[in-house]
Amino acid sequence: MAIFLALQSPEVEVIGLTTIYGNVYTTLATRNALHLLEIAGRTDIPVAEGSHVTITKGTKLRIADFVHGTDGLGNQNFPPPKGKAIEQSAVDFLIQQTSLYPGQVTVVALGPLTNIALAIQADPAFTKNVGQIVLLGGAFSVNGNVNPAAEANIFGDPDAADIVFTSGADILAIGINITHQVVLTDADRDKLAESSGKFAQYLCKILDVYFSYHHDAYSTKGVYLHDPTTILAAVDPSLITYVEGVVRVQTVGITRGLTLFYNKQKRFGEVTEWSDKPTVKVAVTVDAPAVVKLVMDRLMNS
Amino acid sequence: MAIFLALQSPEVEVIGLTTIYGNVYTTLATRNALHLLEIAGRTDIPVAEGSHVTITKGTKLRIADFVHGTDGLGNQNFPPPKGKAIEQSAVDFLIQQTSLYPGQVTVVALGPLTNIALAIQADPAFTKNVGQIVLLGGAFSVNGNVNPAAEANIFGDPDAADIVFTSGADILAIGINITHQVVLTDADRDKLAESSGKFAQYLCKILDVYFSYHHDAYSTKGVYLHDPTTILAAVDPSLITYVEGVVRVQTVGITRGLTLFYNKQKRFGEVTEWSDKPTVKVAVTVDAPAVVKLVMDRLMNS
Repeated sequence: MAIFLALQSPEVEVIGLTTIYGNVYTTLATRNALHLLEIAGRTDIPVAEGSHVTITKGTKLRIADFVHGTDGLGNQNFPPPKGKAIEQSAVDFLIQQTSLYPGQVTVVALGPLTNIALAIQADPAFTKNVGQIVLLGGAFSVNGNVNPAAEANIFGDPDAADIVFTSGADILAIGINITHQVVLTDADRDKLAESSGKFAQYLCKILDVYFSYHHDAYSTKGVYLHDPTTILAAVDPSLITYVEGVVRVQTVGITRGLTLFYNKQKRFGEVTEWSDKPTVKVAVTVDAPAVVKLVMDRLMNS
Repeated sequence: MAIFLALQSPEVEVIGLTTIYGNVYTTLATRNALHLLEIAGRTDIPVAEGSHVTITKGTKLRIADFVHGTDGLGNQNFPPPKGKAIEQSAVDFLIQQTSLYPGQVTVVALGPLTNIALAIQADPAFTKNVGQIVLLGGAFSVNGNVNPAAEANIFGDPDAADIVFTSGADILAIGINITHQVVLTDADRDKLAESSGKFAQYLCKILDVYFSYHHDAYSTKGVYLHDPTTILAAVDPSLITYVEGVVRVQTVGITRGLTLFYNKQKRFGEVTEWSDKPTVKVAVTVDAPAVVKLVMDRLMNS
């Protein structure tokens, strides 16, 4: 849904997709990215395959295949894509594009932050060259969705997330404290199904698993628009408001994957793990009706 | 201030004081408890000395002597008390009193939770015998006061805190999300100074360091009434409202001492560290003006 929205947004030019594990393994994510670009008739856009493992070696991947089905696309048995990923890795692609167009590339990060952390480590100029990183991740002052402490994208690679949050890049984090306010209802889905938009039609076919998952986990008849909200926050920043402060990620123990925002209201007498770290932007409010309307309009008008 | 308020509250009978490290070492806390009971003319109340070390062996104590001065009483050079602590340790005293009066003893815990965790470990009946544990600790959905993650009493012995929170005892936690709403202003302090109450008079003498600390750390002309709020919540539960859920304490890493409340709104597919743990009560609102008024009235009427 987020990819289709990006393609339907005249405010931005999609210069490439990079893939990562999360709801499926990276290999399947690459296959799905190619498939979606074929559905959209946009095979001109390159797909660069991302990391297959976390920054911390030896960590078992958590693949949440119960959210969107084992294929990541609602268990629809789509045929394999005709196209292929480019030879360049996601990390090399990120480094190349940001150095080609310094300050002009927005990275919208919708999964674990491994690729971006690797780009930061590999290229000292990356944090300066990248325009903004708008990331879907964290649970700020609310419970997580993997466990009470951690949100899934951060939990997927906590060490990578801590590297990104403390890198000094211009970062806007959209946590589940924001995206849990943006719900696509059953009624909205019916409207999508009735429209003639090709993206609306396609999405209605694959959303069953996602709706069932929400019904089971949250007792809601509707689904959270995590990734669509994040892409639209990148397209139109006026949809959200944010605060600025230092974010660190807990990487061990029972709250592994927790994002901790320091609001700078107290001066601590002692040096802390938040001291002298660069600040990031963390979204605190969202115009949820406006996001849902924009999602509906752009998907139906396709 | 909390001890004087307890003594001034006809709703409760103070059956003993137990001591612990925190703003001073335990030995000095015992000396100060005896001193305060002599000031109050209540040397009939026993003082039982608590643990000198944390549950986790080898952890260096954090003694926050910059909050109330090196003597813990505003650097006033008071003479040593005449009395002595009882022979019984705080842990033995807690176990004895709760088994003598099952269900009737409220433990108001105003420091690190070492003594209570040791009582839980030593006596399988303690969690059933204790009436309620009203504890000052935690930073729920807000920054801590030791560092952005941790509140001081929990940070003082995170392992002890996790034992207490998951013990199954009837627990009401008052975090700094609550006590930072309850401020004694400069004007309130002037009123105390002008009153003829002996507790009011005594406290005005020792509050300088505490006011200076707040000015430096928080840029406020006023002080947070952490311990008084907690004791009054035990005396009159209608001063606060609470929610119920499972609280775990992070014991390692950069968020060591963080309290994480699980609100049970999501059913997680996987077993988490919060699964099947007993719930506790966590205060979410406080009638701050009523607390301040009660503090003032009871201290001036002494």
